[in-house]
Amino acid sequence: MVCLCRLDSSWCELGHSLPAAENMMKRKLVIDVDPGVDDAQAIMVALATPNVEVLGITCCHGNTPVDNVCKNTLRILKVCNRLDIPVYRGCTEPLLGRKIHAGDFHGKDGLGDAPDPDAPGLELLQKEGAVTAMIRMISENPGEVHLVATAPLTNLAMAVKLDPAISEKLKGLYIMGGNTDSRGNTTVCGEFNFVADPEAAYIVLNRFFCPTYIATWEFSCRNNLPWSFCDPWLAQDTDKARFMKRIFSHTMQMVQTERFEKEMVAGVGFTSCDTYAMAAAIDDTFVTECEQVAVTVELEGRYTRGMMVLDPVEMLKKQHKVNIMKTVDLEKLKKMLMDSLK
Amino acid sequence: MVCLCRLDSSWCELGHSLPAAENMMKRKLVIDVDPGVDDAQAIMVALATPNVEVLGITCCHGNTPVDNVCKNTLRILKVCNRLDIPVYRGCTEPLLGRKIHAGDFHGKDGLGDAPDPDAPGLELLQKEGAVTAMIRMISENPGEVHLVATAPLTNLAMAVKLDPAISEKLKGLYIMGGNTDSRGNTTVCGEFNFVADPEAAYIVLNRFFCPTYIATWEFSCRNNLPWSFCDPWLAQDTDKARFMKRIFSHTMQMVQTERFEKEMVAGVGFTSCDTYAMAAAIDDTFVTECEQVAVTVELEGRYTRGMMVLDPVEMLKKQHKVNIMKTVDLEKLKKMLMDSLK
Amino acid sequence: MVCLCRLDSSWCELGHSLPAAENMMKRKLVIDVDPGVDDAQAIMVALATPNVEVLGITCCHGNTPVDNVCKNTLRILKVCNRLDIPVYRGCTEPLLGRKIHAGDFHGKDGLGDAPDPDAPGLELLQKEGAVTAMIRMISENPGEVHLVATAPLTNLAMAVKLDPAISEKLKGLYIMGGNTDSRGNTTVCGEFNFVADPEAAYIVLNRFFCPTYIATWEFSCRNNLPWSFCDPWLAQDTDKARFMKRIFSHTMQMVQTERFEKEMVAGVGFTSCDTYAMAAAIDDTFVTECEQVAVTVELEGRYTRGMMVLDPVEMLKKQHKVNIMKTVDLEKLKKMLMDSLK
Amino acid sequence: MVCLCRLDSSWCELGHSLPAAENMMKRKLVIDVDPGVDDAQAIMVALATPNVEVLGITCCHGNTPVDNVCKNTLRILKVCNRLDIPVYRGCTEPLLGRKIHAGDFHGKDGLGDAPDPDAPGLELLQKEGAVTAMIRMISENPGEVHLVATAPLTNLAMAVKLDPAISEKLKGLYIMGGNTDSRGNTTVCGEFNFVADPEAAYIVLNRFFCPTYIATWEFSCRNNLPWSFCDPWLAQDTDKARFMKRIFSHTMQMVQTERFEKEMVAGVGFTSCDTYAMAAAIDDTFVTECEQVAVTVELEGRYTRGMMVLDPVEMLKKQHKVNIMKTVDLEKLKKMLMDSLK
Repeated sequence: MVCLCRLDSSWCELGHSLPAAENMMKRKLVIDVDPGVDDAQAIMVALATPNVEVLGITCCHGNTPVDNVCKNTLRILKVCNRLDIPVYRGCTEPLLGRKIHAGDFHGKDGLGDAPDPDAPGLELLQKEGAVTAMIRMISENPGEVHLVATAPLTNLAMAVKLDPAISEKLKGLYIMGGNTDSRGNTTVCGEFNFVADPEAAYIVLNRFFCPTYIATWEFSCRNNLPWSFCDPWLAQDTDKARFMKRIFSHTMQMVQTERFEKEMVAGVGFTSCDTYAMAAAIDDTFVTECEQVAVTVELEGRYTRGMMVLDPVEMLKKQHKVNIMKTVDLEKLKKMLMDSLK
Repeated sequence: MVCLCRLDSSWCELGHSLPAAENMMKRKLVIDVDPGVDDAQAIMVALATPNVEVLGITCCHGNTPVDNVCKNTLRILKVCNRLDIPVYRGCTEPLLGRKIHAGDFHGKDGLGDAPDPDAPGLELLQKEGAVTAMIRMISENPGEVHLVATAPLTNLAMAVKLDPAISEKLKGLYIMGGNTDSRGNTTVCGEFNFVADPEAAYIVLNRFFCPTYIATWEFSCRNNLPWSFCDPWLAQDTDKARFMKRIFSHTMQMVQTERFEKEMVAGVGFTSCDTYAMAAAIDDTFVTECEQVAVTVELEGRYTRGMMVLDPVEMLKKQHKVNIMKTVDLEKLKKMLMDSLK
Repeated sequence: MVCLCRLDSSWCELGHSLPAAENMMKRKLVIDVDPGVDDAQAIMVALATPNVEVLGITCCHGNTPVDNVCKNTLRILKVCNRLDIPVYRGCTEPLLGRKIHAGDFHGKDGLGDAPDPDAPGLELLQKEGAVTAMIRMISENPGEVHLVATAPLTNLAMAVKLDPAISEKLKGLYIMGGNTDSRGNTTVCGEFNFVADPEAAYIVLNRFFCPTYIATWEFSCRNNLPWSFCDPWLAQDTDKARFMKRIFSHTMQMVQTERFEKEMVAGVGFTSCDTYAMAAAIDDTFVTECEQVAVTVELEGRYTRGMMVLDPVEMLKKQHKVNIMKTVDLEKLKKMLMDSLK
Repeated sequence: MVCLCRLDSSWCELGHSLPAAENMMKRKLVIDVDPGVDDAQAIMVALATPNVEVLGITCCHGNTPVDNVCKNTLRILKVCNRLDIPVYRGCTEPLLGRKIHAGDFHGKDGLGDAPDPDAPGLELLQKEGAVTAMIRMISENPGEVHLVATAPLTNLAMAVKLDPAISEKLKGLYIMGGNTDSRGNTTVCGEFNFVADPEAAYIVLNRFFCPTYIATWEFSCRNNLPWSFCDPWLAQDTDKARFMKRIFSHTMQMVQTERFEKEMVAGVGFTSCDTYAMAAAIDDTFVTECEQVAVTVELEGRYTRGMMVLDPVEMLKKQHKVNIMKTVDLEKLKKMLMDSLK
């Protein structure tokens, strides 16, 4: 006990002089994304956090085709000067292959249609595929990996079916997706990430048994930031801030149309959905209230296919419960977002 | 104005001597029920309201088989000394014939298993069937009938399919059923009345175009009364109060089990679900806040069959909107309930 | 022949003096139709059969909107000089109200787009609705009515839900609809009449317990007549033949397109689907081979909604079996058709 | 060893004059199985065919849990003296994880409950998993592999989602599974292999674009052999025949119960379902008649989930057509089966 305490304090004192120890302290993240502007925000938050090590980023179809997703990811890493992080190309379509259109919410190219003539090329991608890389990274770091998933869950579903053991090896799983109150943003009752691959969401919610945190659509809406936050956030005099301002302007216009205002179940505001999942993975004190409940996904309904189903009455007799985020520390969120563009 | 006032006061003085005028001012109700203890509470509230005329009560399968429902309805009328109100036998099963079990929530006989040896017999039922009677009563009183539905919606669905014109002839439709947030009490996502006949609920929500008010399961939970209300309510020294106390004791025990406490989405309390719909039909000022929204019913899901679907984003392009009750005047509710046992 | 003639003439002579015997000998039919050219053929076969009494014709949406159906029925009766037969207007849409388009197979007006300027008007329709008329006709003739159904089954489903007792009062039920081998003509796996109202078909197959004969789509295809039959059939020098020739020419062109040739699961030919059901109702020796099997209808599939489901392995544990027609006496069919235009 | 080397070098020297030509002539098979007695029959047919090289056998859950499947496969290889063929362990459950019970048709252990005390142990399995092995074997032999699948299609679905390119690299795909006429053997409309993992069957039928041959349930029934064939077949004086006799006796009793006689859509007989797919892969002249048609799988029905859907009318507008076996050369089948136990 004493030893442990001393060790703790030496860590604090010694800081960067012990890189091995530092690494031991670092939170290891694997990030599965489909940038997407809010994916970009989430990634940039992770990269700006000192105690976080991003083992790799796996790319999934979603907001835009997977090749765009890969390119967008590399662009984000480039602006953050972190092209050392390995990027893996993943699934090109949902399990059943029934693609839905993302509606150009994030622009036709998924990143606000603000192209970069010097964007890095796809030759920078790893040769290894995203699914096997995900399994490998988790297996090489048993009990240590925080897996953050902000895309359709195809890559995760493939990984856990190929190697069910990864479920137990994860430190935690942090998902942006699903809904709690049957208020959809893509179909009548369905949220985009889950509707984009309902079978994958079903598999993930039924086969990952590690601690799981879910930032749903309704939660994100209810925890939005005032639009006024964006002015100083984007006005920072950095390349990152200028990059974000360029890729975000398309989305900012979209969300002010009548259609999107109706979607916002709790009034208009800045809702960086993916960032909630990332923040929860980075900082254990970010989430201040959760509902612990068994969940699954409806696969067969006409209006409800892809809807997340909560079972508070325990009719489904499922042992595993997930943590549905209810409230978070919005001041921490603001600080993370501000820091991410510094 | 003077004339009207005089007329009003003459009413009080003259009482039954002016039945025609009296009738013209009375709110005409047709009530479709499946007593059920909260149906009993709702019926008794209607019968105790001075300006209400109950044209007839149609019985539907639901909490208990339809013959029990008919018998229970006659028992309620008898204790209220109103066996003059015609009672009609309706559908014995849901449209598709796939019966679900009501789980004896209201007792095996649907009325708390507190039998009355002197219960009136089924020979008191009308010869006319419930569906044709419902059509006739509405058609004979165009623009005047408030239809209150607190059972599975089989009778209403049959009626509107047999004579679609009744939809436009109704003054208003008041339904207890459905849910708003995918929190079910009978299946994972489904409320009893809708799950008991999803196709009927679908037909009613898509073929009745009159002003429609819906008291959902979640709404009922969020607007419950403290259990302490029941003590003075049931302690009144009347036959009605003694009757209610006897039939209600079974349910009061049921709702205090762990399973039912989980169902209550907003904490424990006295939730007389059917009475909200009745109160809304009786008093236009009872409902204080509504959500106006298009709705339909999911028919095909594994977890969501029978779930009411709200469409605030207007993806379904439905013209007709219903009024989902959100808040009500609970003081009025208390008074109605107290008066109903006087 | 002489004997027969004498009998015939004695009938003519004796006329009303032997109505009881005459009536007792006649087969009583109630016909539910949506003409449709093959409905017309079926009706005309019934009207040309000496020992058949058509109690009434109930009209249902289907090949064309119900008002067209009513008009077409009256036109058929007029050309047969039988406007004395009561015609009833029935359901305007399927139970759930999700209409499908009949694809103008029988022409936009349902009868080959060969309008009759002197067509009888809808004022000739009975005031009574089709559903209540059907219940009444069956109830007034218990054990005697052969109910022939060649349209979507909406009217029959409504009738049996409104009065379940009619099921036992029927002599027999003869349906054109459904399929046996998952080969559809309207959807991938579904036949028109069943797909047009799957819930109605489900209710009818699960709530009519009388002897039931079904002429399915595949059966009709496998028992078609050579196209050469039509030449002498339509060349008869009668008003009826000229009428049939005019209304049938549109369909004859349609079925020779590539799309329809693919539909014909057993090669091209003249397939008067509805007439098989009618012939079975008229002549007990017409059907030469049946499969006795429990059946139901799939309601929830993406490709199979509306498909008839056979259960030869008895997994569904249904008591009631129907008779799926397999082979018929085609010579009798030819004679009936020939006689019908005489 | 020397001899082997010499042989190897002679190959190099002689080139096309013998062994290399032989290799070039050999048909390369990858076999995905879930033995199961008819899987055993199919494997033994392959092993007894001179011009066939089995690259590997991948095991899938199905008739029995995957560990039993692996053990059974090793037992079959042992009796054939071919434990040199690599065996890979594959998926333990269907994609969605909803297991169905195989009903002990092939015995509790999947191989007739006739245990072998000297059965080889699971340590003989390859370390590589079945899915990655399948991808590797196909990729190493582009254009050459005949993939024979006689189990639920989970392994194949995983492989094609992980590496879609394998679809084009296959020489041919031979599947036992599905049905053509909605006559199921496991559910009302569904065949075992497809019902055991409907999503996998859907993925395979929609994502493999190589020449595909399917031996369906109805086809197998219609092409059965007389039971009398089995007497001389099993009476051969070999270890293989004695092995087959022991593992087959359980099944032979099962299929003579009333339930299974009802399943046989074309009368009783010996139906070695999996062997048809194997025979088609081995001998291009085995299949004598096919229906070329687009197919898919119903995923959402109550009675039809897992049913194969044929689209002869081309409503689904699918480019890729498969070959549904209709007739085969039964004499060749008999010879293959006879030879397999020699």
